[in-house]
Amino acid sequence: MVFLEEKLNLLNEKLLKMALMVSEAIKNSILSLTNRDSELAKSVIEGDKCINSLELEIDELCINYIALYQPMASDLRFITTAMKINTDLERMGDLAVDISERAIELNEEPAVKPYIDIPRMCQIVQDMVKDSIKAFIEKNSKLAKEVILRDDLVDELVVQIYNELIVFMIQDPKLIQRATKIAFISKYLERIADHSTNICEDVYYLVEGKVLKHQEISKEC
Amino acid sequence: MVFLEEKLNLLNEKLLKMALMVSEAIKNSILSLTNRDSELAKSVIEGDKCINSLELEIDELCINYIALYQPMASDLRFITTAMKINTDLERMGDLAVDISERAIELNEEPAVKPYIDIPRMCQIVQDMVKDSIKAFIEKNSKLAKEVILRDDLVDELVVQIYNELIVFMIQDPKLIQRATKIAFISKYLERIADHSTNICEDVYYLVEGKVLKHQEISKEC
Repeated sequence: MVFLEEKLNLLNEKLLKMALMVSEAIKNSILSLTNRDSELAKSVIEGDKCINSLELEIDELCINYIALYQPMASDLRFITTAMKINTDLERMGDLAVDISERAIELNEEPAVKPYIDIPRMCQIVQDMVKDSIKAFIEKNSKLAKEVILRDDLVDELVVQIYNELIVFMIQDPKLIQRATKIAFISKYLERIADHSTNICEDVYYLVEGKVLKHQEISKEC
Repeated sequence: MVFLEEKLNLLNEKLLKMALMVSEAIKNSILSLTNRDSELAKSVIEGDKCINSLELEIDELCINYIALYQPMASDLRFITTAMKINTDLERMGDLAVDISERAIELNEEPAVKPYIDIPRMCQIVQDMVKDSIKAFIEKNSKLAKEVILRDDLVDELVVQIYNELIVFMIQDPKLIQRATKIAFISKYLERIADHSTNICEDVYYLVEGKVLKHQEISKEC
């Protein structure tokens, strides 16, 4: 089964490439907001096609491996987990597009305030994406667990951003429309973090053979 | 392969059961909002455990079928699609929990306005969930395509609800916090519709062997 092992390495490489593309899309979507660069936002939207076609390619690869090599239980589980991760990554790409669309709208109007928490949140989320793939490739359940815990930090930032925006809106109702869009962007980032959490839960299950739900580790750790 | 066919029927039954549980959770989450019934919201949150354990059961079933029967390409594709659908359904359950949590918060304060568009949207979304599973079980690509188109109606309602809430917030800034939560609920429903769209795109690919993305049919039809 050395042959299948080589193939699984290729699968890992493709997933890593996908994760890097998605992470770049997320970074650029937020940069397009903070630098008021709508051209960059448009390039993220355009680039999503490449992420979608890579998703399809990885999916086909997985199905072909199963059909051709009829892998044993542990390899089979590895491949079906790769398929799940692939879907999560593609959805993250869609969310980077959502962020970019809101950024283009916001860039057409005066800024509400300098963005501080959103770029911070973006950095955490990007690292979560990369580390969740690292956990999968290295079959590292400890790292998976650690990434899941970072989701709490993201949730805290969402609440903080939301509360701050509410204050802005109350002080100046002219800002309501723009502030709501910023709240949506923080929600999109939160959803990207949720996808990373989903990936890490799948990795944990793959490696440890038992379910680890987010709520449980929050209590456990 | 009659034996595998029987097994695939069992898989269909389980997925249908899961879809009905999820659809019920969505309905009750919105009812808990419109009827100001926080006990109902709590029962949705509690019931999500059953949806999660059914997800796991279906996933194990799929992996066992692949490992035991080493199915040919078309059956294999059917099973891997079932796994994807299973994930989408579970995530919809999570969104019903999100709606219920916001409902509990909103029920503690005076109502902003009678809910009209949200229940309408909820009905469309529930039907999308049920019909997407129907399309899968019947391998009906026409129905899949038709469900995807309904997503446009949902998107229109989200914009309509959002614009109306902005007007409310501008008129009375005391409503901002509550109105934002209602906007989030409409976004959760939109995401449930997106998951149904994802299911239907997978069904279309399974049946027709080619990719159908939402944007494309909007142009095509």
